[in-house]
Amino acid sequence: MSGTSNDTARGVVVGVDIGGTKVLAGVVELDGRVGRTARRTTPGRRVVTSRVEDALVAAVLEAADGRPLAGVGVAAAGFVDSAGERVMFAPHLPWQGEPLRDLLADRLGCPVGLDNDANCAARAEAHHGAARGAASALMITMGTGIGGAVLLDGHVVRGANGMAGEFGHMQVVPDGQACECGRRGCWEQYSSGNALVREARALMADQPSVLVEMSGGAPEQVTGPMVTSAAEQGDLVARQAFASVGGWLGVGTANLVAAFDPEVVVVGGGVSAAGDRLLDPARAALRRTLVGAGHRVVPLLVAARLGPQAGMVGAALLVSGDQVRR
Amino acid sequence: MSGTSNDTARGVVVGVDIGGTKVLAGVVELDGRVGRTARRTTPGRRVVTSRVEDALVAAVLEAADGRPLAGVGVAAAGFVDSAGERVMFAPHLPWQGEPLRDLLADRLGCPVGLDNDANCAARAEAHHGAARGAASALMITMGTGIGGAVLLDGHVVRGANGMAGEFGHMQVVPDGQACECGRRGCWEQYSSGNALVREARALMADQPSVLVEMSGGAPEQVTGPMVTSAAEQGDLVARQAFASVGGWLGVGTANLVAAFDPEVVVVGGGVSAAGDRLLDPARAALRRTLVGAGHRVVPLLVAARLGPQAGMVGAALLVSGDQVRR
Repeated sequence: MSGTSNDTARGVVVGVDIGGTKVLAGVVELDGRVGRTARRTTPGRRVVTSRVEDALVAAVLEAADGRPLAGVGVAAAGFVDSAGERVMFAPHLPWQGEPLRDLLADRLGCPVGLDNDANCAARAEAHHGAARGAASALMITMGTGIGGAVLLDGHVVRGANGMAGEFGHMQVVPDGQACECGRRGCWEQYSSGNALVREARALMADQPSVLVEMSGGAPEQVTGPMVTSAAEQGDLVARQAFASVGGWLGVGTANLVAAFDPEVVVVGGGVSAAGDRLLDPARAALRRTLVGAGHRVVPLLVAARLGPQAGMVGAALLVSGDQVRR
Repeated sequence: MSGTSNDTARGVVVGVDIGGTKVLAGVVELDGRVGRTARRTTPGRRVVTSRVEDALVAAVLEAADGRPLAGVGVAAAGFVDSAGERVMFAPHLPWQGEPLRDLLADRLGCPVGLDNDANCAARAEAHHGAARGAASALMITMGTGIGGAVLLDGHVVRGANGMAGEFGHMQVVPDGQACECGRRGCWEQYSSGNALVREARALMADQPSVLVEMSGGAPEQVTGPMVTSAAEQGDLVARQAFASVGGWLGVGTANLVAAFDPEVVVVGGGVSAAGDRLLDPARAALRRTLVGAGHRVVPLLVAARLGPQAGMVGAALLVSGDQVRR
């Protein structure tokens, strides 16, 4: 497999995914496979920024295991400027405009690439996953909220501010549910991990559900994984919650498809682990809501393939992209 | 001006805009200026397709005025396939999948380009108008409904089915106003020429308005140009109608900007003739509704520059594009 290994004289490529709770680094091969990984706890958002950089550098060096670094790509859970140089702000990290890319390049002594985590995950799916070979694709990342990315010819469209793909804050209900962003009716209030839990909590007030027992009778203790597990056990409340969140996934996707007309729509993020329980109601709503559905090829709505490693793999592509570009 | 004229030995480039009521053809210079034009009435949608092609060919030949044809670009008010070969369907034209591009190339003896009218107008604004020089832009065309296009590096993103840019049928109100497309709550039901007229008709039932006199006391006789004229005279009903339609223009634009993050948003089409009366409430709603407005450069929302000739000029770019591409 020498043709696909990057462990050569020029060194290894390491991808890093940094979120609010953990830093995950891994050596990424040219074919997208992940080798040695390392993990650190994110120091938090109220610490000096250098402590977060320390954790990041430590994770990179542990993953590299003494091999020289050919390049390091960083996927950050925050807004990255259009030049890919700075994390402008991030809800769970202390960076506010620090020139992270150059700071890390100095400390690591190799080229560094930087982008937000949703863009990196999309890049990974485009090169090695569910969007591979598509001339145009949308990535929708469903976690706590909704993130995403627009892909054209395998490249992420980053936008004038590097902020393209903020799908979760498209308004789908005028004067709707209040959103953490300060506005109302944002898509992610109806289709996300948070929405799934809220829907299940509301439904279990009126209907029998295994979630009552799972949560010790306290609806506020219900979590997303509990709803997924309850749905697998056939619980009707949990299944209704997935039908609601999936339906809204389809409605919002129809809006994006009307605008972009992509070949394929890839759904990733934690909630997408529910697979067809989420995607089947979404596919039905997409067909029902999409303009001209009878006159077009309705895009496939598919689950992401790379799972929790997508951010890391896509980050590595920021520095090894030329070698794998189709 | 020999450097900008296309009236050379290789012949002239003619752009044609064909809609439900008229066929407009014109010689288009390399700098986007329009020379000799010709006009025909569209024969209708219930005639044999060759009659429409006859009208189109006649308009082209009249505009060319005996000069050889270097190429002809056609902007059609309908859905054009992703290859740019066929009009798949059109509400006011008889074509249903005819290979129009090749049919016309045979009849005219020159290369022919084909795209839908909104894409052509966007291409014209990108090369010669309000989106010139922008790395990314959105064109929103407000006429009877809403059409549009996505521009990246001056090129229209056509989509997998050639159907990108169908912004008017993004759902903004669940179970909202019924739409001609068969669904409910489409954006163009709240922000378009039709929406402007409907809003004014509803408001004049309860408030004094010059529209009562202008329409002979019959609200169903109110037209878009009447509302524009009444607003210019200071009529409060007409101004409220513009505020409503403009506000919804901003809300829908905020959704598109969240997704694409373009440098500039260009608003064209008949309703855009109202200028800031439409765009000021739209700008306010865009700033209010756009995610992260405090952390980004909010894109300019500007009126299109090329007016009713945009389709024709953009159609010509389909066959002369290489010569003017930046």
